[in-house]
Amino acid sequence: MGASTKQGKEIANESRKIVKSLIDHKTKHLKPEERSIVERIVHSTADPEYADITKMSDDFIKASLKSIQAEEDILTDITMVKAGINSYPGKVKCYINHEKTIDIAKKKGITRAAAAIQVAADHDFEGIVAVGNAPTALYKVIELVNNNGIKVKSVIGVPVGFVGATESKKELTNSDIPYLITKGPKGGTPVAVAAVNSLINTAKD
Amino acid sequence: MGASTKQGKEIANESRKIVKSLIDHKTKHLKPEERSIVERIVHSTADPEYADITKMSDDFIKASLKSIQAEEDILTDITMVKAGINSYPGKVKCYINHEKTIDIAKKKGITRAAAAIQVAADHDFEGIVAVGNAPTALYKVIELVNNNGIKVKSVIGVPVGFVGATESKKELTNSDIPYLITKGPKGGTPVAVAAVNSLINTAKD
Repeated sequence: MGASTKQGKEIANESRKIVKSLIDHKTKHLKPEERSIVERIVHSTADPEYADITKMSDDFIKASLKSIQAEEDILTDITMVKAGINSYPGKVKCYINHEKTIDIAKKKGITRAAAAIQVAADHDFEGIVAVGNAPTALYKVIELVNNNGIKVKSVIGVPVGFVGATESKKELTNSDIPYLITKGPKGGTPVAVAAVNSLINTAKD
Repeated sequence: MGASTKQGKEIANESRKIVKSLIDHKTKHLKPEERSIVERIVHSTADPEYADITKMSDDFIKASLKSIQAEEDILTDITMVKAGINSYPGKVKCYINHEKTIDIAKKKGITRAAAAIQVAADHDFEGIVAVGNAPTALYKVIELVNNNGIKVKSVIGVPVGFVGATESKKELTNSDIPYLITKGPKGGTPVAVAAVNSLINTAKD
Protein backbone atom coordinates (compact mmCIF):
# COMPACT_ATOMS: atom_id res chain seq x y z
CA MET A 1 0.00 0.00 0.00
CA GLY A 2 2.84 2.37 -0.78
CA ALA A 3 4.71 1.35 2.38
CA SER A 4 8.43 0.82 1.84
CA THR A 5 9.75 0.07 5.34
CA LYS A 6 9.21 -2.97 7.59
CA GLN A 7 7.08 -0.97 10.05
CA GLY A 8 5.14 0.61 7.19
CA LYS A 9 4.41 -2.78 5.67
CA GLU A 10 3.29 -4.25 9.00
CA ILE A 11 0.84 -1.37 9.48
CA ALA A 12 -0.44 -1.76 5.91
CA ASN A 13 -0.96 -5.52 6.38
CA GLU A 14 -2.81 -5.09 9.67
CA SER A 15 -4.95 -2.37 8.12
CA ARG A 16 -5.78 -4.56 5.14
CA LYS A 17 -6.99 -7.30 7.50
CA ILE A 18 -9.28 -4.87 9.33
CA VAL A 19 -10.58 -3.51 6.03
CA LYS A 20 -11.35 -7.03 4.81
CA SER A 21 -13.22 -7.85 8.02
CA LEU A 22 -15.34 -4.72 7.53
CA ILE A 23 -16.24 -5.08 3.85
CA ASP A 24 -15.63 -8.69 2.71
CA HIS A 25 -19.36 -9.42 2.77
CA LYS A 26 -19.86 -6.56 0.31
CA THR A 27 -16.97 -7.29 -2.05
CA LYS A 28 -16.98 -11.09 -2.34
CA HIS A 29 -18.90 -10.98 -5.64
CA LEU A 30 -16.23 -8.80 -7.27
CA LYS A 31 -13.31 -9.88 -9.46
CA PRO A 32 -10.04 -10.10 -7.46
CA GLU A 33 -8.64 -6.98 -9.18
CA GLU A 34 -11.83 -5.02 -8.43
CA ARG A 35 -11.77 -6.22 -4.84
CA SER A 36 -8.17 -5.02 -4.40
CA ILE A 37 -9.17 -1.58 -5.61
CA VAL A 38 -12.16 -1.29 -3.26
CA GLU A 39 -10.08 -2.52 -0.32
CA ARG A 40 -7.35 -0.01 -1.04
CA ILE A 41 -9.91 2.82 -1.28
CA VAL A 42 -11.41 1.88 2.10
CA HIS A 43 -7.88 1.57 3.54
CA SER A 44 -7.02 5.06 2.25
CA THR A 45 -10.19 6.77 3.47
CA ALA A 46 -11.04 4.68 6.56
CA ASP A 47 -14.57 4.94 5.23
CA PRO A 48 -16.30 1.57 4.61
CA GLU A 49 -19.10 3.35 2.73
CA TYR A 50 -16.82 3.30 -0.31
CA ALA A 51 -17.49 -0.44 -0.57
CA ASP A 52 -21.11 0.46 -1.32
CA ILE A 53 -20.59 3.39 -3.67
CA THR A 54 -17.58 2.33 -5.76
CA LYS A 55 -18.75 1.02 -9.13
CA MET A 56 -16.78 -0.18 -12.14
CA SER A 57 -17.87 -1.01 -15.68
CA ASP A 58 -17.33 -4.62 -16.77
CA ASP A 59 -14.50 -3.59 -19.08
CA PHE A 60 -12.72 -1.28 -16.62
CA ILE A 61 -10.10 -3.70 -15.22
CA LYS A 62 -9.12 -5.17 -18.59
CA ALA A 63 -8.86 -1.79 -20.33
CA SER A 64 -6.96 -0.20 -17.46
CA LEU A 65 -4.46 -3.02 -16.99
CA LYS A 66 -3.76 -3.11 -20.72
CA SER A 67 -2.97 0.61 -20.71
CA ILE A 68 -0.79 0.37 -17.61
CA GLN A 69 1.09 -2.67 -18.87
CA ALA A 70 1.83 -0.72 -22.07
CA GLU A 71 3.09 2.10 -19.81
CA GLU A 72 0.79 4.61 -21.45
CA ASP A 73 0.40 7.99 -19.76
CA ILE A 74 -1.81 8.64 -16.77
CA LEU A 75 -3.49 12.06 -16.67
CA THR A 76 -4.67 13.61 -13.40
CA ASP A 77 -6.93 16.63 -12.93
CA ILE A 78 -4.90 18.18 -10.09
CA THR A 79 -1.33 17.90 -8.79
CA MET A 80 -2.44 16.30 -5.50
CA VAL A 81 -3.50 13.18 -7.41
CA LYS A 82 -0.26 13.16 -9.37
CA ALA A 83 1.75 13.47 -6.13
CA GLY A 84 0.13 10.34 -4.73
CA ILE A 85 0.84 8.02 -7.66
CA ASN A 86 4.02 6.09 -6.96
CA SER A 87 6.11 3.47 -8.70
CA TYR A 88 4.65 3.92 -12.17
CA PRO A 89 7.22 3.25 -14.87
CA GLY A 90 5.17 5.32 -17.35
CA LYS A 91 4.51 9.06 -17.15
CA VAL A 92 1.98 10.77 -14.90
CA LYS A 93 0.84 14.10 -16.32
CA CYS A 94 -1.11 17.07 -15.01
CA TYR A 95 -1.54 20.33 -16.92
CA ILE A 96 -3.36 22.43 -14.29
CA ASN A 97 -0.41 24.81 -13.91
CA HIS A 98 0.47 24.87 -17.63
CA GLU A 99 0.49 28.38 -19.11
CA LYS A 100 -1.89 27.33 -21.91
CA THR A 101 -4.34 26.02 -19.29
CA ILE A 102 -4.44 29.36 -17.52
CA ASP A 103 -4.87 31.09 -20.88
CA ILE A 104 -7.73 28.83 -22.06
CA ALA A 105 -9.52 29.02 -18.70
CA LYS A 106 -9.50 32.82 -18.82
CA LYS A 107 -10.52 33.11 -22.48
CA LYS A 108 -13.31 30.53 -22.35
CA GLY A 109 -14.45 31.28 -18.78
CA ILE A 110 -14.11 27.62 -17.78
CA THR A 111 -12.33 26.09 -14.78
CA ARG A 112 -8.61 25.47 -14.93
CA ALA A 113 -9.27 21.78 -14.27
CA ALA A 114 -11.40 21.58 -17.43
CA ALA A 115 -8.97 23.63 -19.48
CA ALA A 116 -6.14 21.33 -18.35
CA ILE A 117 -7.90 18.34 -19.95
CA GLN A 118 -8.14 20.30 -23.21
CA VAL A 119 -4.40 21.02 -23.03
CA ALA A 120 -3.69 17.31 -22.46
CA ALA A 121 -5.74 16.49 -25.56
CA ASP A 122 -3.79 19.13 -27.53
CA HIS A 123 -0.61 17.31 -26.40
CA ASP A 124 -1.94 14.04 -27.90
CA PHE A 125 -2.59 12.37 -24.56
CA GLU A 126 -3.27 8.63 -24.68
CA GLY A 127 -3.98 6.53 -21.59
CA ILE A 128 -5.92 6.53 -18.34
CA VAL A 129 -7.51 9.64 -16.84
CA ALA A 130 -7.90 10.01 -13.06
CA VAL A 131 -10.22 12.80 -11.93
CA GLY A 132 -10.10 13.16 -8.15
CA ASN A 133 -11.43 16.63 -7.66
CA ALA A 134 -13.22 18.59 -10.37
CA PRO A 135 -16.55 17.59 -11.98
CA THR A 136 -15.79 20.11 -14.74
CA ALA A 137 -12.67 18.11 -15.65
CA LEU A 138 -14.72 14.92 -15.89
CA TYR A 139 -17.32 16.60 -18.11
CA LYS A 140 -14.51 17.83 -20.37
CA VAL A 141 -13.07 14.29 -20.68
CA ILE A 142 -16.47 12.89 -21.69
CA GLU A 143 -17.06 15.74 -24.16
CA LEU A 144 -13.65 15.23 -25.81
CA VAL A 145 -14.08 11.44 -26.02
CA ASN A 146 -17.49 11.91 -27.64
CA ASN A 147 -15.88 14.22 -30.24
CA ASN A 148 -12.91 11.88 -30.77
CA GLY A 149 -10.72 14.66 -29.37
CA ILE A 150 -8.76 12.55 -26.87
CA LYS A 151 -7.60 8.93 -26.65
CA VAL A 152 -8.83 7.68 -23.31
CA LYS A 153 -8.55 4.00 -22.36
CA SER A 154 -10.39 4.26 -19.05
CA VAL A 155 -11.49 6.91 -16.58
CA ILE A 156 -11.27 6.88 -12.80
CA GLY A 157 -13.98 9.45 -12.26
CA VAL A 158 -14.23 10.26 -8.57
CA PRO A 159 -14.70 14.04 -8.33
CA VAL A 160 -16.00 15.16 -4.98
CA GLY A 161 -18.55 17.71 -3.88
CA PHE A 162 -22.14 18.83 -3.74
CA VAL A 163 -22.13 20.71 -7.05
CA GLY A 164 -21.90 18.64 -10.21
CA ALA A 165 -19.94 15.66 -8.89
CA THR A 166 -22.90 13.25 -8.72
CA GLU A 167 -24.17 14.32 -12.14
CA SER A 168 -20.77 14.18 -13.86
CA LYS A 169 -20.21 10.63 -12.61
CA LYS A 170 -23.66 9.59 -13.81
CA GLU A 171 -22.83 10.97 -17.25
CA LEU A 172 -19.62 8.94 -17.28
CA THR A 173 -21.55 5.73 -16.59
CA ASN A 174 -23.81 6.54 -19.55
CA SER A 175 -20.83 6.88 -21.89
CA ASP A 176 -18.92 4.10 -23.67
CA ILE A 177 -15.75 4.78 -21.63
CA PRO A 178 -14.55 2.01 -19.27
CA TYR A 179 -15.04 3.62 -15.85
CA LEU A 180 -14.65 3.53 -12.12
CA ILE A 181 -16.85 5.93 -10.15
CA THR A 182 -18.05 6.59 -6.63
CA LYS A 183 -21.81 7.20 -6.66
CA GLY A 184 -23.01 10.43 -5.07
CA PRO A 185 -21.07 13.46 -3.82
CA LYS A 186 -18.21 11.51 -2.17
CA GLY A 187 -14.86 10.82 -3.81
CA GLY A 188 -11.63 12.77 -3.83
CA THR A 189 -7.91 12.62 -4.36
CA PRO A 190 -7.17 9.69 -1.98
CA VAL A 191 -9.82 7.63 -3.77
CA ALA A 192 -8.35 8.37 -7.20
CA VAL A 193 -4.83 7.67 -5.95
CA ALA A 194 -5.85 4.39 -4.29
CA ALA A 195 -7.51 3.15 -7.49
CA VAL A 196 -4.54 4.03 -9.69
CA ASN A 197 -1.93 2.59 -7.32
CA SER A 198 -3.94 -0.62 -6.93
CA LEU A 199 -4.03 -1.05 -10.72
CA ILE A 200 -0.28 -0.38 -10.97
CA ASN A 201 0.32 -3.02 -8.28
CA THR A 202 -1.92 -5.58 -9.96
CA ALA A 203 -0.23 -4.97 -13.31
CA LYS A 204 3.13 -5.82 -11.72
CA ASP A 205 1.99 -9.21 -10.42
CA MET B 1 -11.79 27.55 -2.05
CA GLY B 2 -8.79 27.44 -4.34
CA ALA B 3 -10.92 28.35 -7.36
CA SER B 4 -9.33 30.96 -9.59
CA THR B 5 -11.77 31.29 -12.50
CA LYS B 6 -15.31 32.72 -12.64
CA GLN B 7 -16.87 29.29 -13.14
CA GLY B 8 -14.70 27.80 -10.41
CA LYS B 9 -15.72 30.51 -7.96
CA GLU B 10 -19.42 30.10 -8.77
CA ILE B 11 -19.18 26.36 -8.08
CA ALA B 12 -17.28 26.98 -4.83
CA ASN B 13 -19.87 29.53 -3.67
CA GLU B 14 -22.80 27.24 -4.45
CA SER B 15 -21.03 24.36 -2.69
CA ARG B 16 -20.37 26.50 0.38
CA LYS B 17 -24.11 27.33 0.57
CA ILE B 18 -25.02 23.63 0.47
CA VAL B 19 -22.37 22.79 3.06
CA LYS B 20 -23.72 25.49 5.38
CA SER B 21 -27.27 24.20 5.02
CA LEU B 22 -26.05 20.72 5.98
CA ILE B 23 -23.91 21.58 8.99
CA ASP B 24 -24.79 25.07 10.29
CA HIS B 25 -26.73 23.58 13.19
CA LYS B 26 -23.57 21.76 14.26
CA THR B 27 -21.08 24.61 13.80
CA LYS B 28 -22.95 27.66 15.08
CA HIS B 29 -21.25 27.48 18.49
CA LEU B 30 -17.76 27.69 16.90
CA LYS B 31 -15.56 30.75 16.41
CA PRO B 32 -15.85 32.15 12.83
CA GLU B 33 -12.31 30.94 11.98
CA GLU B 34 -13.09 27.43 13.29
CA ARG B 35 -16.34 27.41 11.39
CA SER B 36 -14.57 28.30 8.14
CA ILE B 37 -12.20 25.38 8.62
CA VAL B 38 -14.97 22.85 9.29
CA GLU B 39 -16.97 24.12 6.31
CA ARG B 40 -13.96 23.81 4.05
CA ILE B 41 -13.27 20.27 5.27
CA VAL B 42 -16.87 19.23 4.54
CA HIS B 43 -16.69 20.97 1.15
CA SER B 44 -13.49 19.07 0.32
CA THR B 45 -14.74 15.65 1.41
CA ALA B 46 -18.48 15.95 0.74
CA ASP B 47 -18.78 14.21 4.08
CA PRO B 48 -20.86 16.08 6.69
CA GLU B 49 -19.63 13.69 9.40
CA TYR B 50 -16.50 15.85 9.59
CA ALA B 51 -18.62 18.51 11.32
CA ASP B 52 -19.03 16.02 14.17
CA ILE B 53 -15.49 14.68 14.41
CA THR B 54 -13.32 17.76 13.77
CA LYS B 55 -12.05 19.12 17.08
CA MET B 56 -9.70 22.00 17.84
CA SER B 57 -7.98 23.06 21.05
CA ASP B 58 -8.95 26.51 22.35
CA ASP B 59 -5.54 27.91 21.41
CA PHE B 60 -5.38 26.37 17.91
CA ILE B 61 -6.68 29.29 15.83
CA LYS B 62 -4.61 31.95 17.60
CA ALA B 63 -1.37 29.93 17.51
CA SER B 64 -1.85 28.89 13.89
CA LEU B 65 -2.73 32.35 12.57
CA LYS B 66 0.24 33.89 14.37
CA SER B 67 2.58 31.36 12.74
CA ILE B 68 1.03 31.86 9.29
CA GLN B 69 1.06 35.65 9.55
CA ALA B 70 4.77 35.42 10.43
CA GLU B 71 5.17 33.26 7.30
CA GLU B 72 6.82 30.48 9.28
CA ASP B 73 7.27 27.13 7.55
CA ILE B 74 4.53 24.55 7.14
CA LEU B 75 5.66 20.92 7.34
CA THR B 76 3.62 18.12 5.74
CA ASP B 77 4.01 14.38 6.25
CA ILE B 78 3.59 13.45 2.57
CA THR B 79 3.92 15.25 -0.75
CA MET B 80 0.19 14.96 -1.50
CA VAL B 81 -0.55 17.37 1.34
CA LYS B 82 2.18 19.74 0.17
CA ALA B 83 0.79 19.64 -3.38
CA GLY B 84 -2.61 20.83 -2.14
CA ILE B 85 -1.44 23.88 -0.21
CA ASN B 86 -1.72 26.92 -2.43
CA SER B 87 -1.05 30.63 -2.16
CA TYR B 88 1.16 30.47 0.93
CA PRO B 89 3.82 33.19 0.89
CA GLY B 90 5.94 31.13 3.32
CA LYS B 91 7.58 27.79 2.61
CA VAL B 92 5.84 24.40 2.59
CA LYS B 93 8.25 21.58 3.36
CA CYS B 94 8.13 17.80 3.13
CA TYR B 95 11.14 15.54 3.70
CA ILE B 96 9.60 12.16 2.81
CA ASN B 97 11.81 11.78 -0.27
CA HIS B 98 14.95 13.26 1.34
CA GLU B 99 17.96 10.94 1.25
CA LYS B 100 18.49 11.27 5.01
CA THR B 101 14.87 10.23 5.57
CA ILE B 102 15.33 7.04 3.60
CA ASP B 103 18.58 6.39 5.49
CA ILE B 104 17.07 6.95 8.97
CA ALA B 105 13.98 4.86 8.16
CA LYS B 106 16.17 1.92 7.13
CA LYS B 107 18.59 2.17 10.04
CA LYS B 108 15.95 2.65 12.75
CA GLY B 109 13.29 0.40 11.20
CA ILE B 110 10.70 3.19 11.35
CA THR B 111 8.37 4.51 8.66
CA ARG B 112 9.63 7.07 6.19
CA ALA B 113 6.88 9.43 7.32
CA ALA B 114 8.23 9.33 10.90
CA ALA B 115 11.85 9.62 9.77
CA ALA B 116 10.88 12.66 7.65
CA ILE B 117 9.73 14.51 10.80
CA GLN B 118 13.09 13.78 12.41
CA VAL B 119 14.86 15.20 9.36
CA ALA B 120 12.70 18.34 9.54
CA ALA B 121 13.71 18.75 13.18
CA ASP B 122 17.36 18.31 12.19
CA HIS B 123 16.84 21.15 9.70
CA ASP B 124 15.60 23.43 12.54
CA PHE B 125 11.99 23.43 11.44
CA GLU B 126 9.76 26.03 13.08
CA GLY B 127 6.07 26.42 12.33
CA ILE B 128 2.89 24.43 11.75
CA VAL B 129 2.85 20.67 11.09
CA ALA B 130 0.12 19.09 8.95
CA VAL B 131 -0.14 15.30 9.17
CA GLY B 132 -2.67 14.01 6.65
CA ASN B 133 -1.66 10.41 6.34
CA ALA B 134 0.67 8.65 8.76
CA PRO B 135 -0.02 8.11 12.47
CA THR B 136 3.69 7.32 12.89
CA ALA B 137 4.52 10.86 11.72
CA LEU B 138 2.15 12.32 14.29
CA TYR B 139 3.64 10.20 17.09
CA LYS B 140 7.11 11.43 16.06
CA VAL B 141 5.99 15.09 16.22
CA ILE B 142 4.60 14.62 19.73
CA GLU B 143 7.74 12.77 20.86
CA LEU B 144 10.03 15.49 19.52
CA VAL B 145 7.95 18.30 21.04
CA ASN B 146 8.04 16.53 24.42
CA ASN B 147 11.84 16.32 24.15
CA ASN B 148 12.13 19.95 22.97
CA GLY B 149 13.49 18.57 19.72
CA ILE B 150 11.30 20.58 17.34
CA LYS B 151 9.64 24.02 17.39
CA VAL B 152 6.00 23.36 16.60
CA LYS B 153 3.42 26.14 16.88
CA SER B 154 0.38 23.98 16.12
CA VAL B 155 -0.43 20.58 14.64
CA ILE B 156 -3.13 19.65 12.17
CA GLY B 157 -3.23 15.98 13.08
CA VAL B 158 -5.59 14.15 10.76
CA PRO B 159 -3.89 10.85 9.88
CA VAL B 160 -6.27 8.29 8.45
CA GLY B 161 -6.70 4.57 8.91
CA PHE B 162 -7.64 1.71 11.16
CA VAL B 163 -4.18 1.16 12.65
CA GLY B 164 -2.90 3.83 15.01
CA ALA B 165 -4.70 6.87 13.62
CA THR B 166 -7.32 7.11 16.38
CA GLU B 167 -4.73 6.54 19.12
CA SER B 168 -2.19 9.00 17.71
CA LYS B 169 -4.82 11.74 17.54
CA LYS B 170 -5.89 11.03 21.12
CA GLU B 171 -2.27 11.37 22.22
CA LEU B 172 -2.07 14.73 20.46
CA THR B 173 -5.11 16.01 22.38
CA ASN B 174 -3.39 14.99 25.63
CA SER B 175 -0.28 17.03 24.78
CA ASP B 176 0.26 20.77 25.26
CA ILE B 177 0.40 21.38 21.50
CA PRO B 178 -2.35 23.52 19.95
CA TYR B 179 -4.19 21.02 17.74
CA LEU B 180 -6.82 20.24 15.17
CA ILE B 181 -7.85 16.58 14.90
CA THR B 182 -10.56 14.39 13.45
CA LYS B 183 -11.72 11.88 16.05
CA GLY B 184 -11.59 8.21 15.03
CA PRO B 185 -10.08 6.54 11.95
CA LYS B 186 -11.22 9.15 9.41
CA GLY B 187 -9.05 11.99 8.15
CA GLY B 188 -6.67 12.25 5.23
CA THR B 189 -4.87 14.54 2.87
CA PRO B 190 -7.91 16.57 1.69
CA VAL B 191 -8.80 17.25 5.34
CA ALA B 192 -5.27 18.46 6.15
CA VAL B 193 -5.16 20.58 2.99
CA ALA B 194 -8.58 22.12 3.67
CA ALA B 195 -7.57 23.11 7.21
CA VAL B 196 -4.28 24.67 6.12
CA ASN B 197 -5.77 26.54 3.17
CA SER B 198 -8.61 27.85 5.32
CA LEU B 199 -6.10 29.23 7.84
CA ILE B 200 -4.03 30.83 5.05
CA ASN B 201 -7.22 32.47 3.72
CA THR B 202 -8.28 33.73 7.12
CA ALA B 203 -4.80 35.14 7.77
CA LYS B 204 -5.08 37.19 4.55
CA ASP B 205 -8.37 38.87 5.53
